[in-house]
Amino acid sequence: MSPTAQASHIPDTQGERDERHLAIQRVGVKRVRFPLQLRIGTQVQASVGEWTLDVALPAEKKGTHMSRFMAWLESGADEVLEASSLRDRHQQMLTLLGAVSGRTEVSFALFIKKRAPVSGIESRLDHQARWVVETDAAGRTRLWQELAVPVKSLCPCSKEISDYGAHNQRSIVTMAVELREPWSFAAQARVAEESASSELWPLLKRADEKWVTERAYENPRFVEDLVREVALRLNSQASVGAYRVEVENFESIHNHSAFACIERS
Amino acid sequence: MSPTAQASHIPDTQGERDERHLAIQRVGVKRVRFPLQLRIGTQVQASVGEWTLDVALPAEKKGTHMSRFMAWLESGADEVLEASSLRDRHQQMLTLLGAVSGRTEVSFALFIKKRAPVSGIESRLDHQARWVVETDAAGRTRLWQELAVPVKSLCPCSKEISDYGAHNQRSIVTMAVELREPWSFAAQARVAEESASSELWPLLKRADEKWVTERAYENPRFVEDLVREVALRLNSQASVGAYRVEVENFESIHNHSAFACIERS
Amino acid sequence: MSPTAQASHIPDTQGERDERHLAIQRVGVKRVRFPLQLRIGTQVQASVGEWTLDVALPAEKKGTHMSRFMAWLESGADEVLEASSLRDRHQQMLTLLGAVSGRTEVSFALFIKKRAPVSGIESRLDHQARWVVETDAAGRTRLWQELAVPVKSLCPCSKEISDYGAHNQRSIVTMAVELREPWSFAAQARVAEESASSELWPLLKRADEKWVTERAYENPRFVEDLVREVALRLNSQASVGAYRVEVENFESIHNHSAFACIERS
Amino acid sequence: MSPTAQASHIPDTQGERDERHLAIQRVGVKRVRFPLQLRIGTQVQASVGEWTLDVALPAEKKGTHMSRFMAWLESGADEVLEASSLRDRHQQMLTLLGAVSGRTEVSFALFIKKRAPVSGIESRLDHQARWVVETDAAGRTRLWQELAVPVKSLCPCSKEISDYGAHNQRSIVTMAVELREPWSFAAQARVAEESASSELWPLLKRADEKWVTERAYENPRFVEDLVREVALRLNSQASVGAYRVEVENFESIHNHSAFACIERS
Repeated sequence: MSPTAQASHIPDTQGERDERHLAIQRVGVKRVRFPLQLRIGTQVQASVGEWTLDVALPAEKKGTHMSRFMAWLESGADEVLEASSLRDRHQQMLTLLGAVSGRTEVSFALFIKKRAPVSGIESRLDHQARWVVETDAAGRTRLWQELAVPVKSLCPCSKEISDYGAHNQRSIVTMAVELREPWSFAAQARVAEESASSELWPLLKRADEKWVTERAYENPRFVEDLVREVALRLNSQASVGAYRVEVENFESIHNHSAFACIERS
Repeated sequence: MSPTAQASHIPDTQGERDERHLAIQRVGVKRVRFPLQLRIGTQVQASVGEWTLDVALPAEKKGTHMSRFMAWLESGADEVLEASSLRDRHQQMLTLLGAVSGRTEVSFALFIKKRAPVSGIESRLDHQARWVVETDAAGRTRLWQELAVPVKSLCPCSKEISDYGAHNQRSIVTMAVELREPWSFAAQARVAEESASSELWPLLKRADEKWVTERAYENPRFVEDLVREVALRLNSQASVGAYRVEVENFESIHNHSAFACIERS
Repeated sequence: MSPTAQASHIPDTQGERDERHLAIQRVGVKRVRFPLQLRIGTQVQASVGEWTLDVALPAEKKGTHMSRFMAWLESGADEVLEASSLRDRHQQMLTLLGAVSGRTEVSFALFIKKRAPVSGIESRLDHQARWVVETDAAGRTRLWQELAVPVKSLCPCSKEISDYGAHNQRSIVTMAVELREPWSFAAQARVAEESASSELWPLLKRADEKWVTERAYENPRFVEDLVREVALRLNSQASVGAYRVEVENFESIHNHSAFACIERS
Repeated sequence: MSPTAQASHIPDTQGERDERHLAIQRVGVKRVRFPLQLRIGTQVQASVGEWTLDVALPAEKKGTHMSRFMAWLESGADEVLEASSLRDRHQQMLTLLGAVSGRTEVSFALFIKKRAPVSGIESRLDHQARWVVETDAAGRTRLWQELAVPVKSLCPCSKEISDYGAHNQRSIVTMAVELREPWSFAAQARVAEESASSELWPLLKRADEKWVTERAYENPRFVEDLVREVALRLNSQASVGAYRVEVENFESIHNHSAFACIERS
């Protein structure tokens, strides 16, 4: 990766520059892993972030300062992040890169402590989370909080037509929501869990397993039901602006997935 | 996965239905692998497709007919596809599902025979390709042809500042273009290859390796240069409507990638 | 990648050569995609192979002829492969590379036509398959045929303790078997399917879905049961020598997998 | 996943038990993500672990206690791990599961601070690391420490035959070593870095980029050279018992990799 705009270093492309006149919407770095500290309520949770960082480059500029993205990451190594502070850091990145428009994205594993439904035993459920802060050419900034929540879905049709049993499977509910105000990952996870046939736990005792099995059987959900239930709950959240929900069922009677999406712009 | 709209089968969700009133933009199947036959010029090339198939579902409908997507796939098992015939097949899928709006997507490995630059020895270079046909709510259909072309990029800055050598690496140029008229994958691949420091071959003799090494050294390209060169060439293609180009450099001096995107709507 | 053993080209490593005296067990190419034609019974099935090809390199040799692996692949482009002919091709590769010991591996998607249990409707189920031919330093050659079969498992404990329902999920049964004589992929797939709570189909009508649901409920299997059932069936196969079976359950009540392995050397 | 060995709960499999008589070499959980704290020298580094945990199951036992693996993980949530303490924890796991033989594996991202070669600017390079502790049927325990180090390789042949330049690329050196005594990840990383054409840094200034470019040009390495250089250095390490080294070059003149392995048992 190279420092920028050293037009004098590229004698053979001088001729081409004049005819290109092409702005670049996004230029930067991706697949960058870096330690991450998250503020979750009053606690600090450590994780590993995978970052994508980019800015827009005007037509007249030859290149961007790639090393500044990495310097910006290093400069924030000791900071404990939450959605609002990432928004501030994003603005600093734009300033450092001399850019109006740009994008900061970080994906990470997030753990939420849960108590099993009957035994009350505690365990940490892993989720894949992502924050995206993006500033468009008009200088308008939006912050997105994405969470992928693993749940259980049980097929209503299979239950209805079968003399006993019903096929069920793990589903992933991925909600990318535009935040108008802070919203906890725990609350966001509840939206998916309340919409599903049952929620999941890493650690279940026998009495819990019975509870989950019966609970799912009592609450059958098509993938269409599940995505609508989530959308309904998001519609009633004042902290949420635009959103995109996708539910994927890793079908237990097929070797492929069923999926459904609802998007509100 | 379930047959559809069996409202009578889901007694416990009856109450909720009235308050949901939510259309679903996309519902269907994904991660479906199926044999694929492609017409490439006058030849037939076999591959394996990974399909995503979905339709929009109106607010008043409970569910879609998931099994019809699979039946549609099976019904076309013997057909040799090209972009235009996939468009026809897509319309049949919409009809079969009783949908106005929907999307047909298939990703596959594609092989292009190439002759090494000096020895002329022939080998097949693998590319990842994708077709997407989408019909929006107004019934307007667009066809996208995506091709990811592996090339070599050599850093202009590294060449300029170093007494000898220059760092270089494999890059992937991914071009998703809206087709206004048929355009061969081979022609699409040339756009990326002509824009790069050098193109790649699976099989090179020593004289070819010398040629590639020197050629790349003579044609240094930043990731910004490469994405602009591709965009320029696409701008001059009458068969191309909207497009999105992304170039990713798997940097040989870092453990992350540099990337750049240009989009034309 | 470079041609070989051009000791005269590497003046700065001459001194080191004498002190290294290190044989290399495996050197070659990997992540090579190439079109594949398979003979399945009396039919030809096309797929895409991902190859890993390597040979042992004696301590006194500087390097191997990397381009010969690719030339070998190209030379077989028109051949329709089955296990026995791959074995022959493997010997040709060793000869071409001037090696005693080496390994030929190819992974590919394989499709098996199945009839749904009640409706009889036909569809193609995708499997991941792999052949490995390896010749050791003593010149002994072994051929392995690996097949990953998706099935359904239903938890016996969940069924027993719950008033209704039972959690179930997709499982993958991966069997790598040493072939003493030819054995069809279809027969190999049946070993996994007969051991599971139920087999899977891509395309099911409502009557089929009822059958699969009830069948699984009648045949609960722990991951331990499933791996043992498969091992038992392999033990009775005269065509199978050594084997390794792994079953992975994508648990529907957790966000992780349960798994079990049995190996016979 | 189910509690164990509730033979009374599985009336339909009673008959089969007698004829199976099959021990299971490995049964447990995989794809389990859990927070991880590492002791690196005098510092604590947080990461996210992906765990595989399993034990051997004798022929007469129906099943294992799957939930105990998760309980064991939770019980160690506050512990700061190093290789030796993981070994102790592994013994506790075997005791908790009532097993003689078993395996504890955890993979995680690890960050090592490095100073750029000329500017001295500091940045954190990400590595993929893994510990495996395994106890065999005879009760013998071995501890493996694996580290994948990204480096740069420059082709000696390309340099020799070309009038200018030389193709180069990112390589990954993966060393799995049996530890006889503690060995720091930093020291392990140096083995790969000293063997390569050049080491990598996330953050480089222009003077550093010149240094890396020229350094790599002065130190060309075939994939065979690189794997041998690493093996030589491991041979001189008293803390290392058995090992397996693999080097993979993501070739910049091809769309596939070259690789080489040396194993010492």
